[in-house]
Amino acid sequence: MTASHRVKLKPGDTIGILGGGQLGRMLAMAAARLGLRCQVFSPDPDSPAFDVVLNATCAEYADVEALELFAGDVDVITYEFENVPAATAMVLAARRPVLPAQKILETTQDRLIEKDFVKKLGIGTADYADVSSIETLRAAIARIKLPAVIKTRRFGYDGKGQAIIREGDDIAQVWQDLGTKSAILEAFIPFDREISVIAARSADGAVECYDVTENEHRDHILKISRAPADIPEELAAEARGIAEKIASALDYVGVLGVEMFVVQGAGGPRVLVNEIAPRVHNSGHWTLDGASISQFEQHIRAIAGWPLGKPVRHGPVIMTNLIGDDINDFERWLTVPGATVHLYGKGPARPGRKMGHVTQVGAIPPKSG
Amino acid sequence: MTASHRVKLKPGDTIGILGGGQLGRMLAMAAARLGLRCQVFSPDPDSPAFDVVLNATCAEYADVEALELFAGDVDVITYEFENVPAATAMVLAARRPVLPAQKILETTQDRLIEKDFVKKLGIGTADYADVSSIETLRAAIARIKLPAVIKTRRFGYDGKGQAIIREGDDIAQVWQDLGTKSAILEAFIPFDREISVIAARSADGAVECYDVTENEHRDHILKISRAPADIPEELAAEARGIAEKIASALDYVGVLGVEMFVVQGAGGPRVLVNEIAPRVHNSGHWTLDGASISQFEQHIRAIAGWPLGKPVRHGPVIMTNLIGDDINDFERWLTVPGATVHLYGKGPARPGRKMGHVTQVGAIPPKSG
Repeated sequence: MTASHRVKLKPGDTIGILGGGQLGRMLAMAAARLGLRCQVFSPDPDSPAFDVVLNATCAEYADVEALELFAGDVDVITYEFENVPAATAMVLAARRPVLPAQKILETTQDRLIEKDFVKKLGIGTADYADVSSIETLRAAIARIKLPAVIKTRRFGYDGKGQAIIREGDDIAQVWQDLGTKSAILEAFIPFDREISVIAARSADGAVECYDVTENEHRDHILKISRAPADIPEELAAEARGIAEKIASALDYVGVLGVEMFVVQGAGGPRVLVNEIAPRVHNSGHWTLDGASISQFEQHIRAIAGWPLGKPVRHGPVIMTNLIGDDINDFERWLTVPGATVHLYGKGPARPGRKMGHVTQVGAIPPKSG
Repeated sequence: MTASHRVKLKPGDTIGILGGGQLGRMLAMAAARLGLRCQVFSPDPDSPAFDVVLNATCAEYADVEALELFAGDVDVITYEFENVPAATAMVLAARRPVLPAQKILETTQDRLIEKDFVKKLGIGTADYADVSSIETLRAAIARIKLPAVIKTRRFGYDGKGQAIIREGDDIAQVWQDLGTKSAILEAFIPFDREISVIAARSADGAVECYDVTENEHRDHILKISRAPADIPEELAAEARGIAEKIASALDYVGVLGVEMFVVQGAGGPRVLVNEIAPRVHNSGHWTLDGASISQFEQHIRAIAGWPLGKPVRHGPVIMTNLIGDDINDFERWLTVPGATVHLYGKGPARPGRKMGHVTQVGAIPPKSG
């Protein structure tokens, strides 16, 4: 019997959320809708999630005293980002249930461990190799061929900590620029589409997947998601099955996002797993307006020990991220019929910063202007 | 140029909300979704709206110093209930724009002034008479006939402060029980249906009405709303036109709810206005899940000086209030496919207390159990 099986919140109980960004903010709002309170822990005094909760803890993740006080104030703890330091999770887990469980972070914080885990489940991934030196990098290139993608094993997101290596590149320079001895080389995938599956799993093993979402990135950052993905139902079922298999193998409690590629194989299209995000995921933001229950609510239900919902999608949905200066366009979006605008209450619109998103459900009107 | 025309908030600005109940809570959450902050003012330390804002003021509405500090903290002020004391509104309006404007409260806080205002616009109401003594009550009964409804002119809600008078009732006793000398007698309306229109109006005079909603009350408290109402489109257009006329005549900024009766007349069905609520309204809660933009967001947009949205309804919608002990049923509701559950984070489930609501969009599955 793990900690997760002991959690059963009552309305009025308090959820602790590590991380104060837009995901924490939307989790807190989903919890509030269910009559639950949240307390947000974040080192950033300008955390957007602080605005929507009565109690916040502004402290470093290494501040043991603050972590202990925080744990004492809440009934269960979750997080909005996968790079929760192991020591932080350990301090908290000694005092309160942390969901998804700490051991899941160990798998998903390291691209090599994650890939090994996925492969062991019999699920397809890009070819990959452990790289810890210029010699192992050269050996990996010889096996995997170029182009290929070199990635740091830890702490990468939105294209940070990775680079494409092409024929003729200076391998020694690439290795030096990466600035770590803990890396992974992955075959470059000539994919047809990028898709993702948002899955929720409860402590009793029930799994609910949303419709497969199709994603477009710009500069390595998600720009547009569409649901359902324009793929055959058989392939969609395969993608959902993969997400369910991963969630079950991790004994996962909460919502996770699985990023996948659709590639053309000899026997037709197939699905390769790119990455697991042990949290609510940007490509699931459409569920806030496009489904009867959002990914944020499913996560809250799961960690609260409440039954997962059976979400119903209201129609075809398109979600557009407002990144950096896109935010200046928010007033035009406010006037687009059927569009729902979300602004995250962040400060300056730095390039690449996710400032908000827009959802459109049903017949999508053409963009004006 | 009134105060309302000067308001134009930027993301990150702060809205002050008077009242900390579920309406204030849902207003604050809608504001947060648009990147706006809220500060809630309420005398009740257990206010549900306190849970979803970083800054709250817990003080009496007569506490001038607290009101002044509150006004200094916010950029515009609104309210979740119509019985804001005149003195409170005056103190605040001297410092910050209060929207909807203070003069609207003077009309809607008094049933007689409200009925006179509606009548003057050429809109149908029940026959009514000013009653200030047992003699005027008897004269009013002689003219209006029984059954009729006696209501206090001020501070009534959810059936409080009103009684039906039937043939044979002891009029002197009824008058004594009412406990006020400021009342109104209204003809009892043998209505076909109760409907309402939620209308939003911006400072520049634009009006957006939601589809007409059909309402069922139990023990004078709203139990179920359905949208769209099952009435001919011509009648629905008449109802929306009435709400628009009222909003424009009040030079209203924000969302208001107009409760109406559908009655059979010689020339077919027609609409009579029962009551104006100068605020977001329970019968508009379906818009949270059933439309691309909710009544709460429309209210925030209007008072922020932002353009109103063009809400799109996702399908037929039914909203069920969870009143008192209904809340004990919330776990069953969590498992109903397509149902969206809202719990207000309130304390004890006293009889008649609104504890939450459930929305169902699209094909409504039969209730189980």
